[in-house]
Amino acid sequence: MNTFGNLFRLTSFGESHGPGIGGVIDGCPAGIVVDQDFIQHELDRRRPGQSSLTTSRNENDLVHFISGIYEGRTTGSPIGFIVWNKEQRPADYASMKQVFRPSHADYTYQQKYGIRDPSGGGRSSARETIARCVGGAIAKLVLSRHQIKIQAYTSQVAHIKLDKQYDAYDLSLTETNAVRCPDPQKAAEMEAHIEQVKAAGDTIGGVISCVIRGVPVGLGEPVFGKLHAALGSAMLSINAAKGFDYGLGFDTPLYKGSEQNDAFYNDHGQIRTRTNYSGGIQGGISNGEDIYFRVAFKAVPTIIIEQSTVDMDGKETIIKAHGRHDPCVLPRAIPIVEAMAAMIVLDYLLLNDSRKRC
Amino acid sequence: MNTFGNLFRLTSFGESHGPGIGGVIDGCPAGIVVDQDFIQHELDRRRPGQSSLTTSRNENDLVHFISGIYEGRTTGSPIGFIVWNKEQRPADYASMKQVFRPSHADYTYQQKYGIRDPSGGGRSSARETIARCVGGAIAKLVLSRHQIKIQAYTSQVAHIKLDKQYDAYDLSLTETNAVRCPDPQKAAEMEAHIEQVKAAGDTIGGVISCVIRGVPVGLGEPVFGKLHAALGSAMLSINAAKGFDYGLGFDTPLYKGSEQNDAFYNDHGQIRTRTNYSGGIQGGISNGEDIYFRVAFKAVPTIIIEQSTVDMDGKETIIKAHGRHDPCVLPRAIPIVEAMAAMIVLDYLLLNDSRKRC
Amino acid sequence: MNTFGNLFRLTSFGESHGPGIGGVIDGCPAGIVVDQDFIQHELDRRRPGQSSLTTSRNENDLVHFISGIYEGRTTGSPIGFIVWNKEQRPADYASMKQVFRPSHADYTYQQKYGIRDPSGGGRSSARETIARCVGGAIAKLVLSRHQIKIQAYTSQVAHIKLDKQYDAYDLSLTETNAVRCPDPQKAAEMEAHIEQVKAAGDTIGGVISCVIRGVPVGLGEPVFGKLHAALGSAMLSINAAKGFDYGLGFDTPLYKGSEQNDAFYNDHGQIRTRTNYSGGIQGGISNGEDIYFRVAFKAVPTIIIEQSTVDMDGKETIIKAHGRHDPCVLPRAIPIVEAMAAMIVLDYLLLNDSRKRC
Amino acid sequence: MNTFGNLFRLTSFGESHGPGIGGVIDGCPAGIVVDQDFIQHELDRRRPGQSSLTTSRNENDLVHFISGIYEGRTTGSPIGFIVWNKEQRPADYASMKQVFRPSHADYTYQQKYGIRDPSGGGRSSARETIARCVGGAIAKLVLSRHQIKIQAYTSQVAHIKLDKQYDAYDLSLTETNAVRCPDPQKAAEMEAHIEQVKAAGDTIGGVISCVIRGVPVGLGEPVFGKLHAALGSAMLSINAAKGFDYGLGFDTPLYKGSEQNDAFYNDHGQIRTRTNYSGGIQGGISNGEDIYFRVAFKAVPTIIIEQSTVDMDGKETIIKAHGRHDPCVLPRAIPIVEAMAAMIVLDYLLLNDSRKRC
Repeated sequence: MNTFGNLFRLTSFGESHGPGIGGVIDGCPAGIVVDQDFIQHELDRRRPGQSSLTTSRNENDLVHFISGIYEGRTTGSPIGFIVWNKEQRPADYASMKQVFRPSHADYTYQQKYGIRDPSGGGRSSARETIARCVGGAIAKLVLSRHQIKIQAYTSQVAHIKLDKQYDAYDLSLTETNAVRCPDPQKAAEMEAHIEQVKAAGDTIGGVISCVIRGVPVGLGEPVFGKLHAALGSAMLSINAAKGFDYGLGFDTPLYKGSEQNDAFYNDHGQIRTRTNYSGGIQGGISNGEDIYFRVAFKAVPTIIIEQSTVDMDGKETIIKAHGRHDPCVLPRAIPIVEAMAAMIVLDYLLLNDSRKRC
Repeated sequence: MNTFGNLFRLTSFGESHGPGIGGVIDGCPAGIVVDQDFIQHELDRRRPGQSSLTTSRNENDLVHFISGIYEGRTTGSPIGFIVWNKEQRPADYASMKQVFRPSHADYTYQQKYGIRDPSGGGRSSARETIARCVGGAIAKLVLSRHQIKIQAYTSQVAHIKLDKQYDAYDLSLTETNAVRCPDPQKAAEMEAHIEQVKAAGDTIGGVISCVIRGVPVGLGEPVFGKLHAALGSAMLSINAAKGFDYGLGFDTPLYKGSEQNDAFYNDHGQIRTRTNYSGGIQGGISNGEDIYFRVAFKAVPTIIIEQSTVDMDGKETIIKAHGRHDPCVLPRAIPIVEAMAAMIVLDYLLLNDSRKRC
Repeated sequence: MNTFGNLFRLTSFGESHGPGIGGVIDGCPAGIVVDQDFIQHELDRRRPGQSSLTTSRNENDLVHFISGIYEGRTTGSPIGFIVWNKEQRPADYASMKQVFRPSHADYTYQQKYGIRDPSGGGRSSARETIARCVGGAIAKLVLSRHQIKIQAYTSQVAHIKLDKQYDAYDLSLTETNAVRCPDPQKAAEMEAHIEQVKAAGDTIGGVISCVIRGVPVGLGEPVFGKLHAALGSAMLSINAAKGFDYGLGFDTPLYKGSEQNDAFYNDHGQIRTRTNYSGGIQGGISNGEDIYFRVAFKAVPTIIIEQSTVDMDGKETIIKAHGRHDPCVLPRAIPIVEAMAAMIVLDYLLLNDSRKRC
Repeated sequence: MNTFGNLFRLTSFGESHGPGIGGVIDGCPAGIVVDQDFIQHELDRRRPGQSSLTTSRNENDLVHFISGIYEGRTTGSPIGFIVWNKEQRPADYASMKQVFRPSHADYTYQQKYGIRDPSGGGRSSARETIARCVGGAIAKLVLSRHQIKIQAYTSQVAHIKLDKQYDAYDLSLTETNAVRCPDPQKAAEMEAHIEQVKAAGDTIGGVISCVIRGVPVGLGEPVFGKLHAALGSAMLSINAAKGFDYGLGFDTPLYKGSEQNDAFYNDHGQIRTRTNYSGGIQGGISNGEDIYFRVAFKAVPTIIIEQSTVDMDGKETIIKAHGRHDPCVLPRAIPIVEAMAAMIVLDYLLLNDSRKRC
């Protein structure tokens, strides 16, 4: 299941230390101007080596388009693309060929398939998300025609968290610091904490929040294709994701019906809600208010600390990681969250078009 | 999108106050003995009118199978079924025909489709989940052959929550109280709280936890078909669900990599993990440990309290609910969570079979 | 795989001698007036017992809608429906429980599933096509808003065939005779031939031709979703279908490129082709000209003549059919061909809408 | 819709005169030895410039695998691949940028998408089938483990046709002549005819027959996933295909039920049929006998003869082809037919595995 989406579809391929990561975008509307600078910029936000918070693997992650574009515009034909890997170091993983790294996918891939590419986790590496960022960037180009904007940001690292909702922050500050948090003071605390954890050879997780503005009323396909179910599935397919909620989410039990219902009112001819506890989605369908949700990410399981494990023969042994890795995935996961959100919203925009017709 | 699943598929139809709720189960393995008592028992767990915590609508919810069964066994052909509605009261909703109930799906359905069935929410009613319970019951019958067991329970209502993981409780106590919480003392507190909220014409939400035991290693389809992404999507498609997490979930930021990695060891020839912070899924694939997850549910938006809203013409007005409803959805959502989990696990069991072959 | 279609989808269930045949139509545009007389008329065209050319099984085939319709209009929610079987006679098939009827699906179902419903072929019976006719009738109601019209007719029975293309006949004569052939003289020959074959306890097949008028330019999804590939798959899924071709079809080898290319010209501002050897589809996409195709149907394998076969234990034996059956499926297959065509065209109309957007 | 298949899936991308043609194979069983010589050999059978019967475009069509293979074996991860185009000549098509070539896809693509790549037909070029041949070659490697063999051959060119079924010929002779016909004398006639047509600047079509041996009983998914419907859809998705039939196909009307029923008998413990008019499929499910079918192909629409057409402004004009092309597609379509058949059979083998389980 390396294809994602209904009408706007991304098929992804490639391994961490193979020749490259690629993908095919199918169902993209025709006639879209392919702004390659923008797409590369989105990839650069995900690129390793941006700061001391990210892995030192040196990749420029240049995207090459192979098809589906004519004279700078999409043609409606599938858009094939590839990002060649530059700094493959399979040798770094030679010792891991026989050993299962704890809380990685080594053991489960080996048991499922009877074979696995051990270099950097092979297919299970987050390097695969390059393909998603390309797909998401194309989707964003289409969405920008509809004035739909998506912004994710780090809202929690370890115990350090933002205590207000998205609308209390100036989200344009998100890209001004390495951790991608719109609160500069919290950002500094988060960075310091990550550096400290990293120095100890350890890793840490957190929470990414995301807001989607400008979604028209009506996106979402009852009953199994609810918009938030699609967003949830998309987010949970990102490496290291452990949870998803939207609107009041896991805080919802603390609110009674009378406290969390969003009263409708007439805003100069436009029906709106006075509050937005629903998170912009009611009955699985967008209601025109801002959509906001959270994604929890665990700590990267690669740590420079000895751990107990077993090898391919079931013999118990000790492992200590080699290879480059991120001390905290959140900064680089921001563009991935946005990319997945963009692909879902575009897919549902296309689905909605087709459903309303008569 | 009223069809759910890849190889084991449920298609659902029906409205709250129409003739009935039905469905079609496609892709069920052949030769399964259809234990109708068990299936009806699963429906009875979801049925309204079980206790003072649930709506008083009087339905016996008897399931009638129309196809796909021969001499008591599944034939591999689609299993069509219907549960006739008995106590439809569309008249109760006459006043709502022109008014959008806050935080319900009235407004979004109207805007999306240009038409809606106003009686009890029509298609957006949780009565639709009858079809899921039938599908889930059939799936459980297949899973029981594989010694896979699924148990959900209420772990939080309002601020009252269980503070330990599933393995600290005797889950067989779950069905011994109306709120379906395995901790009898907490259950009593929860019930008292729900009664109090109900008396005020209000409603309340909470969290359901679920554990799946006996899942073999290898279920899950990288990269977009991760097992937890499928579970998340399934749970988020349930009415009133606001969030999903698994393993450490939204608590994961508080744990460093060294604290949450699950060390492998050899348990008499079986590779296992000493801890299970991963929640039984690594790299999107089951690792043979217990799978556990949580689902957050909001308060039912129907309250016997006056609320501001607008009508079909955009005119602002006041609404106060008629119609029967649940003060808290959790007790009746327990079997729905289990049903969705059962269908996902069976679907992925079938997918896994096909993928490993060579 | 009892679900058919991409955006407009039919899920079908039911067996020949079970309680009934039903289905679920999902993705139908909202707001369509459901003309029940028209739908029933379509079912009546498929109904057994219409003439001496069809089986004597006595069924009124009344369709009951259960969901998805409010005040006479579609709501965008799934349309569940059922046609109850009236004259089930499973006892007629008692002797066939142990014996495989030649060229029926008895043996292959038994081997695939390890179990089968032997009454009238169970799920493999053409009675299943009731669901298709309902889906097709709904699709026709939508297509009529787009001035798209579909007409099938019998063009060959045994060696008796129409020797001209569809536009040489007055297709409104199709329904004026029992065999549904627009050439009255050929129709009479065909009927006489079928009666003669029937008198001998035998059966006969033929070819159905179909024309679709009014399809706009642009329907078809390259490269695997070509419009004619979708039509072909749909037609070949009908019981007893053995072949499909469109445009020049199997006669195409007799024409050189220069003889079969369709020259474009400008017809008062509308680009059209002077000839239509392409059959209205070029590169898998409709070009605005009439779409026409043929479907070959074999003789019904049920014959009142002794045949050699084997039983469930592999023992060789002799079988002679009981049970009612059609001497020739073509007259009743006409509405089924139209129904499948209607569902494909509507599905592709909806797909095309979503693809062109930007 | 550039993805094909259910469990074994091919996604294809690329244009005739773009950088290359590529694809992604998803769902391939793990552990398969990737015999690159065999795969390249399959591509070589499809390659241009093999003989005077094929286009003179000079391409070596070397396939480069990018992912999904580790130490020479499939890993269960998606197999990305690319074949770089070498001899792109977009300049050859400059004049066609403004003109619609008759019976090509120029007009329909332009109308559907509002934009098109005019070079060699862009996406609508048969060069896309490179991706299918790679997918088919991988599928054949898996099928060879199951002793399933697929052989296609040219059975008709213009009026010259083989008059016997596949089992009357030594199919190993198929590759001994340029037209790929197992009857050497007919092959010579066909070749002479194609050369003659070519000399006149014209083109010609024909029929390809195909036989699949060794398919086990049970492949096929009622009711919409009948095995022959899947084969038909696959074949009709090939460029220039106009028709598909199997078993008696379009000859079936000439046979009465008593003449075409296949009597079962017990062949030393194996249930078989004495005749095989059914073409190895009954009720949409394989019955263990040889599967055979035909595909009709039209003449290539590119001819070196003046034709009437219109340009992008609707102005009527005359066109005469430049660019290289095949005088007859059949020789090069043989491996494509086999490839599509291989992918279908493998997909259905995987589906069947998952369906029977309980």
